[in-house]
Amino acid sequence: MFVYADNAATTAVSPKVVEAMLPYFTEVYGNPSSLYSVGQKAKEVLEESRERVAKVLGASPREIYFTSGGSEADNQAIISAARIGEKKGKKHIISTKFEHHAVLHTLQALEKEGFEIELLDVHSNGVVSAQQVADAIREDTALVTIMYANNEIGTIQPIAEIGAVCKERGVLFHTDAVQAVSHVHIDVKEQNIDMLSISAHKFHGPKGVGVLYARGGIVLTNVINGGAQERGKRAGTENLAGIVGLTVALEDVVAHIDETNEKLEKLQDRLIEGLSKIPYSELNGDRNLRVKSNVNFCFEGIEGESLLLLLDDKGVAVSSGSACTSGSLDPSHVLLAIGRPHEVAHGSLRVSLGEDATEEQVDYIIKSVSEVVEYLRGFSPFWGDLVSGKRPHVFAEHTVA
Amino acid sequence: MFVYADNAATTAVSPKVVEAMLPYFTEVYGNPSSLYSVGQKAKEVLEESRERVAKVLGASPREIYFTSGGSEADNQAIISAARIGEKKGKKHIISTKFEHHAVLHTLQALEKEGFEIELLDVHSNGVVSAQQVADAIREDTALVTIMYANNEIGTIQPIAEIGAVCKERGVLFHTDAVQAVSHVHIDVKEQNIDMLSISAHKFHGPKGVGVLYARGGIVLTNVINGGAQERGKRAGTENLAGIVGLTVALEDVVAHIDETNEKLEKLQDRLIEGLSKIPYSELNGDRNLRVKSNVNFCFEGIEGESLLLLLDDKGVAVSSGSACTSGSLDPSHVLLAIGRPHEVAHGSLRVSLGEDATEEQVDYIIKSVSEVVEYLRGFSPFWGDLVSGKRPHVFAEHTVA
Ligand SMILES: Cc1ncc(COP(=O)(O)O)c(C=O)c1O
Ligand SMILES: Cc1ncc(COP(=O)(O)O)c(C=O)c1O
Repeated sequence: MFVYADNAATTAVSPKVVEAMLPYFTEVYGNPSSLYSVGQKAKEVLEESRERVAKVLGASPREIYFTSGGSEADNQAIISAARIGEKKGKKHIISTKFEHHAVLHTLQALEKEGFEIELLDVHSNGVVSAQQVADAIREDTALVTIMYANNEIGTIQPIAEIGAVCKERGVLFHTDAVQAVSHVHIDVKEQNIDMLSISAHKFHGPKGVGVLYARGGIVLTNVINGGAQERGKRAGTENLAGIVGLTVALEDVVAHIDETNEKLEKLQDRLIEGLSKIPYSELNGDRNLRVKSNVNFCFEGIEGESLLLLLDDKGVAVSSGSACTSGSLDPSHVLLAIGRPHEVAHGSLRVSLGEDATEEQVDYIIKSVSEVVEYLRGFSPFWGDLVSGKRPHVFAEHTVA
Repeated sequence: MFVYADNAATTAVSPKVVEAMLPYFTEVYGNPSSLYSVGQKAKEVLEESRERVAKVLGASPREIYFTSGGSEADNQAIISAARIGEKKGKKHIISTKFEHHAVLHTLQALEKEGFEIELLDVHSNGVVSAQQVADAIREDTALVTIMYANNEIGTIQPIAEIGAVCKERGVLFHTDAVQAVSHVHIDVKEQNIDMLSISAHKFHGPKGVGVLYARGGIVLTNVINGGAQERGKRAGTENLAGIVGLTVALEDVVAHIDETNEKLEKLQDRLIEGLSKIPYSELNGDRNLRVKSNVNFCFEGIEGESLLLLLDDKGVAVSSGSACTSGSLDPSHVLLAIGRPHEVAHGSLRVSLGEDATEEQVDYIIKSVSEVVEYLRGFSPFWGDLVSGKRPHVFAEHTVA
């Protein structure tokens, strides 16, 4: 059996999306900036895509900027807010310890410039509260940037509440919704979101295209300077095929959120129940405040990389930590942020189910993970120390999730 | 007849390239950063693409960075050189008056930061000399950035000579080769190019993907911060389908440069000869030092936008100025840079032929342009003034090109 269960890393482009993209490679290939028909046809499709994306997010078309992906959107949102802030003498930025690196590394760059970056602690259930945000906001706060759903543990943040706090205090609020937009209903106006990032490849669209929503009135700073595309705020000939792919994929996934969630919730329950039977293991992140596709576990006494390589041999594609940091030997900063000690943070597993996941697949994952964990523990000196009592266990032998 | 003759704005993706891209949407869709097979397969293809691109440019794979296009590559090259320079107290940058806006606007942003930007004059034939560069280089010069071929008038710069000057003087040299790589043979080592930008959609690859070549030892500054992709210098999940498309398209176009040029040269001669018969018109840019696909003319007494809209009615897709500035009422900064007065700079036409252009198409272009120019002049008060002698002509009645 082959089970791709790493949809939080990336997804396959759906055949429907590929089909929608194809005409924009070979037929409607004009440059949207060109005035003749083949260019204007491209321009129309570009603006129609913008309208459709805006509608899904509850935004207006003028608030939608197409980018090369989630990372670029995150960078531009944060840099724009920083530039707006510094003009008013505001150089304090609030974020959290478990953001994606596209956010954290952009903040680090600003810190070198003299911005003060305050990273909020994350509660052990993987959630930051609106109260924490309210307490941290100062007179000189330029931006609050907090992810909608975490990419590793899938926990959902109280974005509407945080948005309300930021609005009341007059502080710009950005959310990285890359891992959320296909799993929860987003309405930027209702939820008081000023800026929001998404990326097509996380919901069966193509890689290399994303969206930055920025509320009207927010003057963006270019990350890429040049031509007048995207109302002068993002230069470069528009990737129309990609933009169409993003649009079709977004509409499709959002239209089915409720039914997908209903289905995935059952599979998620089954998977959590099954993996909980493995001794000395624990679910990471809140049992309920999480996207329905995500199950993330820590297992004592094993090492995540070996776990996923052996699972790969069994045809199960899952991850340990996030894709962007795999290859690195550091334990996940997300698991450390929710208080997992180093030794178990290394032994983590992220399963992110696709919309088409089945019970059989879930059962196969449970069986495979159980076998591989047992097998690896057989070799692990660390596990030996736990068994012999030389080291204390971190988790109880059995937890009921 | 329909003739797409605006290949300098963008090109149709070739069917061969589309076919090469397709598996990377739906089959090899893994994230190249993932450790399991479907991810590693993607990683292999990514690195193989890097090798293939490096080979075409005469670079080594470690010197190739995939970007979201030509604009991003230009931005990153220039910003990186600026950051390297300023650490050594070097804040002088040399460029030219007729660069693409991706270069000019990035330089303007640096100027606001305190960099001194020196834009060299361009000779009336559309060429900058290596001597001009040599004369401009100072102790505190951080970068020379000069385009390989101009996007509007197609003139080719003496890049190898400029490269030699920069090397001798120890100054970093970047060239925007977006309009050149499919028309002239480039070897970054032989030509002493330190950094170079290209964009796939100019040579039948997809939009939204480009390459920045940066010589080993040059430490790039991120334009997009985040994950560790592209050796930490360009964050964002890799657009593998696009990268494969770029690679296949690049190999294909470069393999056929000589034969394409031989063919296009004849068509270029024919087109220049035909358009020269229109009274009071003149070729822009050197007759010989230009890419073989490009023909750019100024016509007295007409307005470029009307010209191209009427040509569009006849099925001829061409441009006036460049795609990125169309829609703007300013005359082309390129034509002003080569000394065309405002009144004729407005009346310009760029024809950029594709590899599959035919004699019949060229003759149809000549016929259509001749008719439309005559028609428009019939309505033009400006032309009336020229005819009645109220205003002096800029061009001779007939020039032999
Ligand atoms: C000379 C030149 N540089 C840069 C670019 C920008 O490339 P892209 O549209 O891929 O960002 C273009 C074309 O638009 C160009 O002609
Ligand atoms: C939460 C989050 N933000 C940002 C990104 C970056 O998106 P992209 O790879 O499209 O740049 C990702 C995924 O890689 C993510 O999971």
